[in-house]
Amino acid sequence: MNQLYLCSEYQKLYLSLIEQADLPDLAVTSKIEDANIVLADPPKLAQQIEKAQNLEWLQSTYAGCDALLAQNKRDYLLTNVRGIFGPLMSEYVFGQLLTLTRHLAHYRDAQSQKQWSVLPYQSLINRKMVILGTGSIGAHVAATAKHFGMQVTGVSRSGKLATSFDTVVTTAQLTSQLSDADVVVSTLPSTPETKGLLSHPTLSACNGAILFNVGRGPVLEESALIDAIEHKHIRHAVLDVFANEPLDSTHPFWTHPDITVTPHISAISFPDQVFAIFADNYQRWHQGSALQYTVDFDLGY
Amino acid sequence: MNQLYLCSEYQKLYLSLIEQADLPDLAVTSKIEDANIVLADPPKLAQQIEKAQNLEWLQSTYAGCDALLAQNKRDYLLTNVRGIFGPLMSEYVFGQLLTLTRHLAHYRDAQSQKQWSVLPYQSLINRKMVILGTGSIGAHVAATAKHFGMQVTGVSRSGKLATSFDTVVTTAQLTSQLSDADVVVSTLPSTPETKGLLSHPTLSACNGAILFNVGRGPVLEESALIDAIEHKHIRHAVLDVFANEPLDSTHPFWTHPDITVTPHISAISFPDQVFAIFADNYQRWHQGSALQYTVDFDLGY
Repeated sequence: MNQLYLCSEYQKLYLSLIEQADLPDLAVTSKIEDANIVLADPPKLAQQIEKAQNLEWLQSTYAGCDALLAQNKRDYLLTNVRGIFGPLMSEYVFGQLLTLTRHLAHYRDAQSQKQWSVLPYQSLINRKMVILGTGSIGAHVAATAKHFGMQVTGVSRSGKLATSFDTVVTTAQLTSQLSDADVVVSTLPSTPETKGLLSHPTLSACNGAILFNVGRGPVLEESALIDAIEHKHIRHAVLDVFANEPLDSTHPFWTHPDITVTPHISAISFPDQVFAIFADNYQRWHQGSALQYTVDFDLGY
Repeated sequence: MNQLYLCSEYQKLYLSLIEQADLPDLAVTSKIEDANIVLADPPKLAQQIEKAQNLEWLQSTYAGCDALLAQNKRDYLLTNVRGIFGPLMSEYVFGQLLTLTRHLAHYRDAQSQKQWSVLPYQSLINRKMVILGTGSIGAHVAATAKHFGMQVTGVSRSGKLATSFDTVVTTAQLTSQLSDADVVVSTLPSTPETKGLLSHPTLSACNGAILFNVGRGPVLEESALIDAIEHKHIRHAVLDVFANEPLDSTHPFWTHPDITVTPHISAISFPDQVFAIFADNYQRWHQGSALQYTVDFDLGY
């Protein structure tokens, strides 16, 4: 009998989903020490993972597993969730981007003053988006950008062409792509290689771009951003992730007129979708097959 | 020699575009009486069209020609602009829709109070959009909705299936499609048939839908909308067009918490795109070929 330990913000919901699914040879335990399988939100579990002495497989409810990767324990199989965040991320990026390009904040303010006040705008057609990360999230954002008529360049370790991108370059070639970028979107995970990738040398290569960080906070060097906005390299930044979350109330981003802050909501995992991935992986586990979406502890994704 | 009279908000820009294009046998006149061809913004020209006694062909710079159709004069060929508004309209509709569904106004307010405050949301996936009008604008909005994973029903006079729609029904069948609609978008022109189509019988068939009017104001009966919001048939309305524009400062829409008002900017025609259509039509005119995008005075589009 497999023993499953649950550790999530949506504890009750997952419990009822597990009950309904009636998975073979699976019991739920309330003791992390007894569990050989864990289904968990990484930041919620990270502090107690050392106690999981019988852990064989951990299914993350998030795409980003950095909270777990920061721990010493690595003697287990780690899987994350993929393929469900792309559409949510596209909604967030294009909701925010069109709010900026179509001046929706101006019209909200004009309405509150009963003013019929037209601002000129540019459409997204033919504007250039550079997307850092060409995985399933980056590729979905790229497809949405193509739908809106944009030119889309991807940036990845390999530089291999991926679906929905016009071109893909390697991380070493990033800077050369930024001078004519209208929009730069980082979907990168936090790894030793990505940390601080968006800092002074890269940000200062931009010419008035709109910057999104929807991957992980440490990819962006926060003080370099404020400087890049001051020097007009970055026109506006939309940040959903930060080096430290929640963002401290004294942080200068909150009140910066050219920074939009949201509380890590660009792609919230819906428990039913996450559970479907867990249930499928559990069936594979039970049959002794290879699991989907395994995370490499060294690469960090 | 053809004599062209120009009447547009972008007078100077069109004049310079005409000079650069160097179209054969075409002179610009400042006297409307002498012109056999007119390039004009409909509302700007409407009051003086009776003076255009030599008018043979009028190229509208707008898609909507209702200001001209309201005049008695009909002894000329009228063409409008098409095919350039779909992408702009999609930007507007999805910028506004995602602002609502992804709670961007809440996050803007939360940021101003330095609050890390998460709201749950539903993605657009599998939600139903009903689009009134299956012409080039409606079809582009439909394609964008499909990209975001929505179910899309079109409504047209003929009910003929059109590109990018899952199904299309006739106007007579509209009411039956509204009870499970999450989003209703009117792209309809103002014609005797469309006037008041969105009034008590249709609006009260909705169950908490988000309503867009991006076509023409008279399609929506304004007092019926306030009532439909009060009775929760409509959850929120995003209105870019009105029966009388600019919207009077005493109009109740300005201050209604569930109505977003914008000043007819959902798809502003960019003069260079409009001019390209005019120049192409002029070449056809000069060669004696049939023009593109002719408007039927009786149908109104």
